[in-house]
Amino acid sequence: MTTTIPKYSQKPICVVSGVGSGTGTGNACARLFGKRGYRVALIARYIESLQAAVTEINGYEGGEAAAFPITQYNKAEVSRVFKEIKAKWPGAEIRVAIYNTGHRVAKPFLELTQHDIGKCPAAAAATSLLSDLSCWANFLADRASEKSTDESVQTNILGGFAFSQEAILSFREYAINELGNRGVLIFTSATSAWRGNPTMAAFAAGKHGVRALSQSLNKEFGKQNIHVAHAIIDGPIITKITRKTFGTPEWDTNPDIVLNPADIATAYWYLAHQPRSAWTWEIDLRPAHETW
Amino acid sequence: MTTTIPKYSQKPICVVSGVGSGTGTGNACARLFGKRGYRVALIARYIESLQAAVTEINGYEGGEAAAFPITQYNKAEVSRVFKEIKAKWPGAEIRVAIYNTGHRVAKPFLELTQHDIGKCPAAAAATSLLSDLSCWANFLADRASEKSTDESVQTNILGGFAFSQEAILSFREYAINELGNRGVLIFTSATSAWRGNPTMAAFAAGKHGVRALSQSLNKEFGKQNIHVAHAIIDGPIITKITRKTFGTPEWDTNPDIVLNPADIATAYWYLAHQPRSAWTWEIDLRPAHETW
Amino acid sequence: MTTTIPKYSQKPICVVSGVGSGTGTGNACARLFGKRGYRVALIARYIESLQAAVTEINGYEGGEAAAFPITQYNKAEVSRVFKEIKAKWPGAEIRVAIYNTGHRVAKPFLELTQHDIGKCPAAAAATSLLSDLSCWANFLADRASEKSTDESVQTNILGGFAFSQEAILSFREYAINELGNRGVLIFTSATSAWRGNPTMAAFAAGKHGVRALSQSLNKEFGKQNIHVAHAIIDGPIITKITRKTFGTPEWDTNPDIVLNPADIATAYWYLAHQPRSAWTWEIDLRPAHETW
Amino acid sequence: MTTTIPKYSQKPICVVSGVGSGTGTGNACARLFGKRGYRVALIARYIESLQAAVTEINGYEGGEAAAFPITQYNKAEVSRVFKEIKAKWPGAEIRVAIYNTGHRVAKPFLELTQHDIGKCPAAAAATSLLSDLSCWANFLADRASEKSTDESVQTNILGGFAFSQEAILSFREYAINELGNRGVLIFTSATSAWRGNPTMAAFAAGKHGVRALSQSLNKEFGKQNIHVAHAIIDGPIITKITRKTFGTPEWDTNPDIVLNPADIATAYWYLAHQPRSAWTWEIDLRPAHETW
Repeated sequence: MTTTIPKYSQKPICVVSGVGSGTGTGNACARLFGKRGYRVALIARYIESLQAAVTEINGYEGGEAAAFPITQYNKAEVSRVFKEIKAKWPGAEIRVAIYNTGHRVAKPFLELTQHDIGKCPAAAAATSLLSDLSCWANFLADRASEKSTDESVQTNILGGFAFSQEAILSFREYAINELGNRGVLIFTSATSAWRGNPTMAAFAAGKHGVRALSQSLNKEFGKQNIHVAHAIIDGPIITKITRKTFGTPEWDTNPDIVLNPADIATAYWYLAHQPRSAWTWEIDLRPAHETW
Repeated sequence: MTTTIPKYSQKPICVVSGVGSGTGTGNACARLFGKRGYRVALIARYIESLQAAVTEINGYEGGEAAAFPITQYNKAEVSRVFKEIKAKWPGAEIRVAIYNTGHRVAKPFLELTQHDIGKCPAAAAATSLLSDLSCWANFLADRASEKSTDESVQTNILGGFAFSQEAILSFREYAINELGNRGVLIFTSATSAWRGNPTMAAFAAGKHGVRALSQSLNKEFGKQNIHVAHAIIDGPIITKITRKTFGTPEWDTNPDIVLNPADIATAYWYLAHQPRSAWTWEIDLRPAHETW
Repeated sequence: MTTTIPKYSQKPICVVSGVGSGTGTGNACARLFGKRGYRVALIARYIESLQAAVTEINGYEGGEAAAFPITQYNKAEVSRVFKEIKAKWPGAEIRVAIYNTGHRVAKPFLELTQHDIGKCPAAAAATSLLSDLSCWANFLADRASEKSTDESVQTNILGGFAFSQEAILSFREYAINELGNRGVLIFTSATSAWRGNPTMAAFAAGKHGVRALSQSLNKEFGKQNIHVAHAIIDGPIITKITRKTFGTPEWDTNPDIVLNPADIATAYWYLAHQPRSAWTWEIDLRPAHETW
Repeated sequence: MTTTIPKYSQKPICVVSGVGSGTGTGNACARLFGKRGYRVALIARYIESLQAAVTEINGYEGGEAAAFPITQYNKAEVSRVFKEIKAKWPGAEIRVAIYNTGHRVAKPFLELTQHDIGKCPAAAAATSLLSDLSCWANFLADRASEKSTDESVQTNILGGFAFSQEAILSFREYAINELGNRGVLIFTSATSAWRGNPTMAAFAAGKHGVRALSQSLNKEFGKQNIHVAHAIIDGPIITKITRKTFGTPEWDTNPDIVLNPADIATAYWYLAHQPRSAWTWEIDLRPAHETW
């Protein structure tokens, strides 16, 4: 268990997606990995908070971060972003990639819209709004109202596939480092990856899909010294959003009942630096008093 | 365990999707339920075989079947089909719905196209071809070449959501029958719903999603006396296609190693007629000698 | 799905253990299998109710049943009982064996005694009481008070191993019947086989062990056409005991919330007569309104 | 993620069981925790290697270790050992307890003896040999021949229960430390805790039981700030024994295919020092190239 990074010819890159809130798991990872020697590429759909995190990390001694806005986690967009990341730091290697994108949908099954479940038929191309205006309008409305943002299957599964392909295609170009890997891909997941529940059909389908993806990749690419891991986050995380929604005065100071993003980041750091003889596919993380 | 159907004011309807091959699980179910007193609505994207099954079932004493072609299992198309089914047999109740649609994708992860994984951005609306021509062309090409057909996430998960909403909305209108249910929804699934594997990332994500969906629905709607079940089919099924692909002269006469669709249909019949005090969510079915 | 038994040179035997209450799953199986053509061997530690079930089954047209008391489900005792069963009906084949023995322990972990968890060191041999008198006395006291009876690990796992060995050793001698099996072994299990919970450590360890056993056996002996299945019973079953404990006037007439043993027996009948091309390892059974 | 231990009034104790080989997981944990500030109590049935590890740890700067031989992991013996540990270091707190005891049985089901599966009826009390001499003789013979040693259910489950009760009873007396726990209990487990397989019935039943136990305890005692974790070790570990059995000249120098006990110990260190807002119940560890 090391707090120093492996040796590379130049400072390596850690890509983190889903940092929109500016306060959750993705941001905590960006800060920790940024502080300990990685260049950090932050990807998000909501860009207000993006620059603040970049500025903070760039303020660390030796800190280097950059923001990469994305409109949707589809193949084309994700490819474009990975190309921009490589162009930003020529010759640097992407050694850690954290797919932390997702959106929680919890509503009675019969109230789920196609938008909640899957993707807007035309959401892939912002220019083809006309092909399904009502869905897209709905998407924009949700976004405007800050109530909903994206959709479970698109965000979790299809986005996860696109992100994984870009990450693994990058990793395959690199030499095995002193820890024994060419790269590490980590997925942020949830208890809904283990079981379905009333009102959770859409979210559970998305997270089950992520779990299947991560397990398949772990088995397929372990032999190529690419490490794929899946983190079950079980419980409320302290973020700007949850604080507003669930918070009480003492809520976010009680680590027995809420997950501190910094503690999740520590777990991800450990996963990202395990020696090759003992790699983890799945880890679960929950507060001490969480009922499960 | 009964081989006679519950009493209804008129002959009830069993909806079966995914009957394209004319020889697999869906068709065996259609034949069995058609023989034992259900009107059978057959839904498929590939219509060549559709009429043959309908003709056969209509030839049974009292047999009644009709074909309902569909272009894709999205919300709009599935809604249209359910409306047409109800219009075909006015006043009859849809008491069993079998979502048997799916497509197996098995290829190295980096060879997966967006098309394999998810849906064509514009596939939902056949009229909006222009929005993503290359994907749609690919879809048509696959279909023309009979090599691939649809995509794992679209077919398994998004299609499953649309089908489930239509089925459950129908069931909720009906009285509880003598077995204790308002309707029974059964999903055809696979071992990939339990675990990911190399080359199976797309298929496993789809089937994991189906499993999550079915479990969430079972828990949400059991209390409304709607029964949702999930069948893990583990092993090769004798169909026109597998016979061509895997068959040896003796292959499909050896029930120790291949699944007979008629035996799967028997299991579905049992699931569809369990008394309310002992309902099954998940059952697995495999040949005696299958390694697992 | 048949309600008639396969053809044998003489009437076959169905062995059912755990029929002590006279009213639960084991008894319902005994009645159903006895009515439909099996000789039924009833095994139990508590013999008061044993004779009543035997008498009832013998009263059926063609019914044949016999009681086989046992002191504990250990190797020696179980072997003895299987020998006695074969001696009772010379030449008849044991084609179905249902291990329905178990005991539910639910108490705070720190209150669990060694007796709850494992077996009395000397319980195996009623004659060696002196080797651990306090445990044995405790056992007898529990038994006398009808509060507890046996222990989770001994009853579920060790008893299950002994019973399985005897059943499988018998099955291996027989020809493959028209359904494609030499014999069918079914375990009664519980939701605790899927997950541990507070106060359920001992019971969950036992049922997890049963599940592992049944899965290992299914995989090892399927190739020899021996079918092993595992039934998760999730919810309260109507028995003499639960009626006393949980019952309200309307309780046991509401199949939405309680399992009817007769319905479980129907599921076991289906499992015991599946054709070899589509065998089930695991099935779950719960009332329509059960929360899970 | 810290490499320094929390503050206590005096040096705390880490109890590690199953250190018989002198070279495996238990020993690596003892060395790591011994080096980083814990007094280490080593428990084992096979005492030849026990003293060597103690001597090595006592040779570290500030190292303190002691050996606690045990004849069997039953309640009486485990209680005695915990008492001796407390007597050895009066006033010191047992803050970490690692149940690393187990024995792998892999043989065709019908060749399993009662001894492989469960415990000798009289093994609990070495003085009551007479109660079941043949089993006990078998035990001694196995031990003498170094072929088998103990039994799956006794060692994994019953021993695990006894060890857990002693550990938790100790933890409950302590204050919450700066990491947020009163104590941490970790179980060494195996892939057999996730699935049964041919020839693995006895081992899988044992490890499934351990998993159920650990999950139940995690849920019951998390609320009391006692952390219980379960580690799935999937693959061959380099030990004196596996080196003799599987080793080739290059075998144990290839971390892509064998687990290094020191890397497992690092994972246990991380588990034992997670902050309370993000505790792990289950982690899996396997070499990069392991097929699973």
